[in-house]
Amino acid sequence: MDQKVQMLLETVRKLIRRGAHPNLNNLLKKTHPADIAHLFRYLDLKEQRVLFHLVEDVDTAAEVLSEIEHSVSAQLLEQIEKETIVHVLQHMPYDDAVDIIQNMPEELAEEVLDSMQDDCSDEIEQLMQYQEDTAGGIMSTEIFSLREDITARQAIEALQEAEDVEMVFYLYVTDMYNHLVGVLSLRQLLMVPPGRCLRDIVSPDVISVRADTDQEEVAQLVAKYNILAIPVVDDHNKLLGIITVDDVIDVMRQEATEDIYKMAGASEEELMYGYKSFKIARLRLPWLLVNLLGGVVTGYLMWWFQLTLKEVIALISFIPVITGMGGNVGGQSATIVVRGFATGRIDFTTLRQVFFKELRVGLIMGLVCGLVVGGIAIVWHHNPYLGLVVGSAMTIAMTVAATMGVLAPAFFKRIGIDPAIASTPFVQTSNDITGILIYFGMATLFISNLH
Amino acid sequence: MDQKVQMLLETVRKLIRRGAHPNLNNLLKKTHPADIAHLFRYLDLKEQRVLFHLVEDVDTAAEVLSEIEHSVSAQLLEQIEKETIVHVLQHMPYDDAVDIIQNMPEELAEEVLDSMQDDCSDEIEQLMQYQEDTAGGIMSTEIFSLREDITARQAIEALQEAEDVEMVFYLYVTDMYNHLVGVLSLRQLLMVPPGRCLRDIVSPDVISVRADTDQEEVAQLVAKYNILAIPVVDDHNKLLGIITVDDVIDVMRQEATEDIYKMAGASEEELMYGYKSFKIARLRLPWLLVNLLGGVVTGYLMWWFQLTLKEVIALISFIPVITGMGGNVGGQSATIVVRGFATGRIDFTTLRQVFFKELRVGLIMGLVCGLVVGGIAIVWHHNPYLGLVVGSAMTIAMTVAATMGVLAPAFFKRIGIDPAIASTPFVQTSNDITGILIYFGMATLFISNLH
Repeated sequence: MDQKVQMLLETVRKLIRRGAHPNLNNLLKKTHPADIAHLFRYLDLKEQRVLFHLVEDVDTAAEVLSEIEHSVSAQLLEQIEKETIVHVLQHMPYDDAVDIIQNMPEELAEEVLDSMQDDCSDEIEQLMQYQEDTAGGIMSTEIFSLREDITARQAIEALQEAEDVEMVFYLYVTDMYNHLVGVLSLRQLLMVPPGRCLRDIVSPDVISVRADTDQEEVAQLVAKYNILAIPVVDDHNKLLGIITVDDVIDVMRQEATEDIYKMAGASEEELMYGYKSFKIARLRLPWLLVNLLGGVVTGYLMWWFQLTLKEVIALISFIPVITGMGGNVGGQSATIVVRGFATGRIDFTTLRQVFFKELRVGLIMGLVCGLVVGGIAIVWHHNPYLGLVVGSAMTIAMTVAATMGVLAPAFFKRIGIDPAIASTPFVQTSNDITGILIYFGMATLFISNLH
Repeated sequence: MDQKVQMLLETVRKLIRRGAHPNLNNLLKKTHPADIAHLFRYLDLKEQRVLFHLVEDVDTAAEVLSEIEHSVSAQLLEQIEKETIVHVLQHMPYDDAVDIIQNMPEELAEEVLDSMQDDCSDEIEQLMQYQEDTAGGIMSTEIFSLREDITARQAIEALQEAEDVEMVFYLYVTDMYNHLVGVLSLRQLLMVPPGRCLRDIVSPDVISVRADTDQEEVAQLVAKYNILAIPVVDDHNKLLGIITVDDVIDVMRQEATEDIYKMAGASEEELMYGYKSFKIARLRLPWLLVNLLGGVVTGYLMWWFQLTLKEVIALISFIPVITGMGGNVGGQSATIVVRGFATGRIDFTTLRQVFFKELRVGLIMGLVCGLVVGGIAIVWHHNPYLGLVVGSAMTIAMTVAATMGVLAPAFFKRIGIDPAIASTPFVQTSNDITGILIYFGMATLFISNLH
């Protein structure tokens, strides 16, 4: 927590304890809504309720509410009367309101929608039809667009009269049927003679997306072309909305968190549950149970080799290192491929090259680690054959693990399963199994030398 | 690869094969520089060289070069004459040129700097003094700022005359000594009477950063306050440069990739090496060798318990599942804490709550997994005591693992080591060790019942 927020938090807590509401009120007026929202993370339920009610200006309250994280706002909304919620939501951009309503318990969401003014709830219900993770789900519908048949002067006047249109930097130009025909920058508008018709100055090369485009793809386009906003159109190229770069930043952060969580077998969904342990445990358990099954299978294989093991008990000392390293190397390769798919750096065209690169890297690292662990085996158990078996098993297991780390995510992506969620347990389990098979297989083969 | 790029790639390849340079030339003129840059990923060295030389317009060439990934541009620059490189770099925003020069082999970088025009290389060398991952390292110095003592009309005129100033949406206003005094939006400028002095309309609440602010912090500020650009100032509040949101998007993507790579024991640096296996292996090996050591220690502990194991060989069947699950659960908790630190969602104020949450989650999941694996043990080996030992060892090991997953990253962050890089090997190794100790400890305790 940075100092500014720390100080603000202490002051707010002190004022709440003292019941110094007018002072709090003044303080809140001078504080950025994003900073007010930040405070809610650290406040208890009662403090949250008091503070939220003290935000007098409904527009500020709306901004605060839309900036609070979902896990915190879910708690907060339970504390506030329905009427206040409805009032605040009606003062919010529709897309933010949709976002909050979609994260409410279903009952409350229905009640809230019922109590809203008809035009507002209509808009919101329409937006709710789009999938949450598509362009339609994150676009803002309050757009400022200009008809192609007006002049630059008229456009500037329209702009001066427009209110509440957040962040106008691209001016989208449409024809009389609301089809998107092109884009203008505010600066271009200032540069042309005031009498020129927009149709003659508009740039027709505008990058747009469909409402059902995946939000990750939207983020990639914005990042690739360095644009500040992207218009959303329907199947007939009619302008539906706009996605601004600040929403894209949220998407990128969220997608990165999602990928990171998924690869560890957790789900970003748990952020919505705050500190509710049972719900969180339920989200993480399926992945763990798959791994548990894998672990039991590995154990079964070891059980299978018990005769070899009973004969040469020293073999046991390298089981953890063989399975562990296979898992690590496979995890590295899988991480690089999964992230590569997510950022677009790797695709099926370059996969072959990536495969052979990881194979070579796995082999090199396997040779190094095999030498080290083989050396340790010789020094520890005074048995050069054991060193040979352990070392070469390690080299082979690591090389196989690296290739598995490329193939598994690629396979899951090809059959349409999210590689981030499927690869890690699969890679880990299969590498445990192949590691044990290679290790004990070689040991059984050389058993006569190992005594 | 999307269809558009795929088609473009095929056409370009065909034209290169045929030597149809005029056609290629025309095609390139109609293609967005970001798309041209995208192609380079799939071309071989010869094709890259041909294509780059065919981009006639030097500004386009500069844009293409700054959009190409570092791993690819490093190869490309080796193919091109130094004069061309210098010429293109001089037509690039300084910050992009710095970025490219910093990723060149040192020799080439020096040669290039020497051949540049003095004023250009001076600017670049000055920028190169800032750390790559700070605000200074990513800022653009070609800023458009206005003096506070001019009028709105003069400001609009200055804007109309300004060239090549990419993306003006905030107008930064300075005093006569170049101190940053405030900010104006282009729209605000259009709304006020033309004779008003900027000093009277400027908004003094401007969020700025110092040149040495970490780029991750810059990204967090931009995301938090939903701003499109952030000015960079020196210690005396003098305006040095500006960071625009498109650079911030690159930073966020890069930092996310970095964190993901680090947690798997890889380094983002390897992206610079393309397919060079030896260099990549060298980057990944240290982490693996630490884990290798951990694996050997775990093996040593198992060796220690060989008497217990010899007596009850069935114990061996659950070694992989005990160590594996500890690693998984610890990995989940560590991932959540590391990512929480990175996004600012978790800090030392909320760490206590997070710790107890993970403890509860670990216990719940440990009980479920303990029951399952205990049941398997009873059914498999027909020994209820074995089931009890395995099941309760699993429960304890998983609970301990979860708390370790919180404590390790927090500890590393506290002592100033990047938790992303340090946590995973530490958590994994320590959980392997505690898992084995708990398992065999309990087995030794109940050894008389296990026969």
